[in-house]
Formats: sequence, C-alpha cells, structure tokens
Amino acid sequence: MHIVITGGAGFLGSRLARQLLQRGQLTGKDGKLQDIKRITLLDVVAAQGFDDPRIDAVTGDIADAAVIERVITAETQSIFHLAAIVSGHAEADFELGMKINFDATRIILERARALGTKPRVVFTSSVAVFGGELPAVVPDNTLLMPQSSYGAQKVMGELLVNDYSRKGFIDGRALRMPTISVRPGAPNKAASSFASGIIREPLNGVATVCPVSPETRMWLMSPRQAIANLIHGHEINGADLGLSRFLSIDGLSVSVKQMVDALEQVAGAEVVKLIEWKEDEAIKRIVNSWPGAFEAKRAKALGFTADADFASIVKAHIEDEVKK
Amino acid sequence: MHIVITGGAGFLGSRLARQLLQRGQLTGKDGKLQDIKRITLLDVVAAQGFDDPRIDAVTGDIADAAVIERVITAETQSIFHLAAIVSGHAEADFELGMKINFDATRIILERARALGTKPRVVFTSSVAVFGGELPAVVPDNTLLMPQSSYGAQKVMGELLVNDYSRKGFIDGRALRMPTISVRPGAPNKAASSFASGIIREPLNGVATVCPVSPETRMWLMSPRQAIANLIHGHEINGADLGLSRFLSIDGLSVSVKQMVDALEQVAGAEVVKLIEWKEDEAIKRIVNSWPGAFEAKRAKALGFTADADFASIVKAHIEDEVKK
Repeated sequence: MHIVITGGAGFLGSRLARQLLQRGQLTGKDGKLQDIKRITLLDVVAAQGFDDPRIDAVTGDIADAAVIERVITAETQSIFHLAAIVSGHAEADFELGMKINFDATRIILERARALGTKPRVVFTSSVAVFGGELPAVVPDNTLLMPQSSYGAQKVMGELLVNDYSRKGFIDGRALRMPTISVRPGAPNKAASSFASGIIREPLNGVATVCPVSPETRMWLMSPRQAIANLIHGHEINGADLGLSRFLSIDGLSVSVKQMVDALEQVAGAEVVKLIEWKEDEAIKRIVNSWPGAFEAKRAKALGFTADADFASIVKAHIEDEVKK
Repeated sequence: MHIVITGGAGFLGSRLARQLLQRGQLTGKDGKLQDIKRITLLDVVAAQGFDDPRIDAVTGDIADAAVIERVITAETQSIFHLAAIVSGHAEADFELGMKINFDATRIILERARALGTKPRVVFTSSVAVFGGELPAVVPDNTLLMPQSSYGAQKVMGELLVNDYSRKGFIDGRALRMPTISVRPGAPNKAASSFASGIIREPLNGVATVCPVSPETRMWLMSPRQAIANLIHGHEINGADLGLSRFLSIDGLSVSVKQMVDALEQVAGAEVVKLIEWKEDEAIKRIVNSWPGAFEAKRAKALGFTADADFASIVKAHIEDEVKK
C-alpha cells in the first residue's frame, strides 16, 4: 500500500514514518493488513535521515493542487495529514493560516473525492478548537468555541473530514491531539511551544522562558504516545466513530508546576533554574483558552491511550533525544 | 448609509429590503441611527417589485469575487448575507453547496477585510448545524454535529464570521434561524420545503405531500418575525455577543400535526384534505436530524423574539400572501 504523510519532514511526520516502516504493515481499504510498499513524505523541506527504499521524500507546497495531484494517486490508500501552520503563527499571519490549515486540507480531500478511491484520512486537530467558559474537565459533547484562527481553521478542517466521510468521499478521522510535549528541536511559533521548551532547553543546558503561570493546566501527550495514537486512529474502523468523525484523544492533565517538578525529579534542581518565569499576555490568552483536562470517554472506549505521568515523558525524551 | 443584501431577490431578502425602506434608518458603524441612502439587492436574478430610488438591484454570482468587489465598497456599512443553496440542493450538489454556502461567504468577508471598514455583517445560519443525539430541548452550549453538507457549510460560515469578528475585520453576527414557515411562492429544494408547502398549497386549493410523520417536531418562525429578528440581530451591539458571534434564535416549537391542526382551525377541514401523507426517507433523514426545540436563553436575553402560536402564523400568511 501507498501512504502519504503531509508534514512528513516534521518531527511527528518523520517519527510516524519510522514507526510505520518498522511495523511494515497497515490496515488497507479492504480492512486487512497490507504490506507498506511506499510512504511519501510531503513537506516544504525534504525529509532527512531515511535510508529505506520505501521512503519517497517530496518537497512541495501542500496548498498547491498540482503538488497534491502528483502525490496522492489512485494507489494511495492512506493519508496522514499532519502539516499545519501552528497556533501563534496562524494568529500572526491570518492568510497563511487559512491557506495551509484550511485550504490545503480541502485540496487534499478534494483530490481524494476526485479520485473516488475513498482513502483513509487521519487529520490532526487540536485542543485549540475549544474556548470560552468550560468545565475543569471537558466532556465529549462540549460546544466548540475556538478563540484563535488556528482553532477555527482546525474546526473547519474537522467539519470537512466529517462531511467528506459522511458523503463517502473519504474514510476520515479527525483526531484532536493534546499538546505534544516534549517536542525535540527548536522552539516554534505555537503558543504551546513553551510546553516543550521548558523541559527540552534546560536538559540541554540552555536557558528558557516560561510565558504562563505555574498553575496553568496543560493537556499533554508524549511523542511516542502521539505516534501510537495516530496509528491507532488509522487502524480503527471508521464506522465505529458514528455520527462524528472528530474526536478528542485521551491525554495527560498536568499543571506547568507539575511539569517542572517532574523535570526537577528526573534531572535535578540545577536544571530547573534555567527556567525564567516571565508571563506573555498574547501567549497566555491563547493557552488559557484551551482546556486543561478532558473526559475523553469516546477516545477511551475506542482504545486510544494516554501517558501515565509526566516524569515518564521526561525520561522518554531524554532516552530519545538528549545527546549523551 | 449603504446596505448590501445578498439573496436580495429572494422572498426574505425582498421583505427585509421593504422593511428597511419603511424604517428609513439603521444603526451605523458609529453606533448611531443613520439614514438609509441605498440598499443593493444582489442576487442571481433581478429583484422585482421595487419602486424606490434607494433600491439598487444587481444581478450577479455571489461566488464571483469581482461581483462582490463591485457591490461591497468602502461606503457599505452593513451586509445582510442571506443567499444560500438550500439543504436538499446542497446535499444533491456538493460542489455548488460549497461554492455558494461557504466560498461566497468567505469572499464577502475577505472583501470586508481588504476594505478595512469593519462593516456589520448579519449571516443567516440554520438549525441544520445541529445533529446527532440531542436532548428534546437543545441548550445553547450544545456541540454542533451537522448531518448534511448544508449544515456543515453553515457551521464553517459561522466560524468565519466569528473569527473575522474576533480579529476585528468585521462586526459579525451569525443568526441560526428556525425554519421559516410559511414561505410564499413555489416549493424549493430545501428539506424543510414541506413546512411551508403543507400550509401554502392547500390554502391555494392545491394538493401537496407531507414527507414526514405528524409527530415530527419543527422549530419555526414566520416571515414577519424573521425579518424583525434579522433587523434586531443587526441592531444589537456586537460586543454583547461575547466570545461567540453565532447564536440560536428563539423560535416556535410545534409538531407537524399541530401545524395541520392550526391550518384546519383557521381554514377548515376541506383545506386540510389536500395534504397527502407520504413519507420520503431522504427528507426525513435530514429533517429528523434537526432539533425541534431550543432553550435559546442567549437569544432571549439579547431580545430576540418568537411567534406566539402557529395559528397566528397561518393567519398572517393569509393576510400577506393569499390572493383574495
């Protein structure tokens, strides 16, 4: 089978590709496990570090229909659509956010509709679809009230995935991922960038700023867990999602203070001193509009899983990413 | 002030224009009543029956950015965006629904953004944004789960109106209108077309079909009330809508049987015999996914109003529309 991963050069896309290569198989459109013959990693930059003939790294703009037409073909059985302009960036550049977070999603779904091949599409959505006054633990049937352009664009993407699935154009599933922590690499323009930065940077001996208060409650997921859930989200039977193809994935609810305490527990008090607490109103406004905990009953019933505790996340990050 | 009404040749658009001409004034961007100097009625067909120099009937495609650019100018202080492809039609013609219900909405909002004039935009949404398992009386904070392309497109329009307002590009309000009954004129491709047809046709001595069961609960509003609420929705202070510019308007909850009973009460038993009960599965599927009653607490608090009873709606329809 042929799989397309948008954002395939990104850290989540690359990790997903590696995990898929290792598995070797994925459920095909016939509902049976099939050998993975080819994985196309589409991104604005070339995916690096792969030495496997099944990997096909394509550089291109996902908002360009000609690129999508070339990449998604009649052979494509599965699409993991991970590419996005992150929250802070989409808030600063409204047009770019609309183009990548919404228009590109539509172009991908339109391509699938034109082909008539009904591929499985895993679309990553976000806690940013929520906003407004919310209970401390958010139930599955909560009204979406995004307070950022990123969140609004993600809801529109979910609606497309849902409607295209209902119409039988695709077999879609829109998974609202918790904030991924700890992301490797450099800080990005996501309002949630700090949720990785306050762990990653100190572990590398680099000073960092925490722009939110210690009491801020975050809904998190480790990269390992995220990959497992993206694959699980692909493997489940689409019909089991019922009337809504969008879903809040289970995650781990921790306060920023608990995150830092876990870092101290794992790496020591000196490391934690590299965090400077300096609130940023623009980031706080966005982050505080996101829920810090979810019931995630549907996700649990469908077999999605969450990390056990944040200290384990920090340890896994050290294992996977921190240079010895 | 200059006002644009899309769908201005339609029955709701024309009635709204007449009411506005009669009022003569509307609240401008400065928050003060201003004289209405010009009302542009944009539609695919020319608006008929106006003999007022303030009316400017324009024929054009609302999904054509050049048309929108010509019609919405720096002078435009208010836009009533009523034009839409109705539910049954949007379900049958997916592309046309996306183009008119979503793309055109975006083009209109983009035009306002490009002008930088922050006009008031009243966008008509619908009960079709709801779906799935719902309580008998739907609260304001209910998760939207549209089960039709029309419903999905309306939610996406609401999200745009909300985000463009939040960003300060427009001063928008997306009003979820109940099903309008009794519409004058011919049946249309709306799944709810029968909700007018079962009253209008028998009153004109014409046989008609009711495609849903008598127990079906409808959330209705008369044309008179709809116009009053559209104007009210324009006049309220946008900031009073808080974090969500979308809103379920108050309406009247009646069963189809109660509608027919009211018709019999007003017009007699012979008239009612012109209704043939013959269920249509496609129409039932869509109509039954819509709620039959709402709490509409926000709408009530904001001063929106509902019809008192269905017999009054039938009487008003006879007064306004039935040839003597």
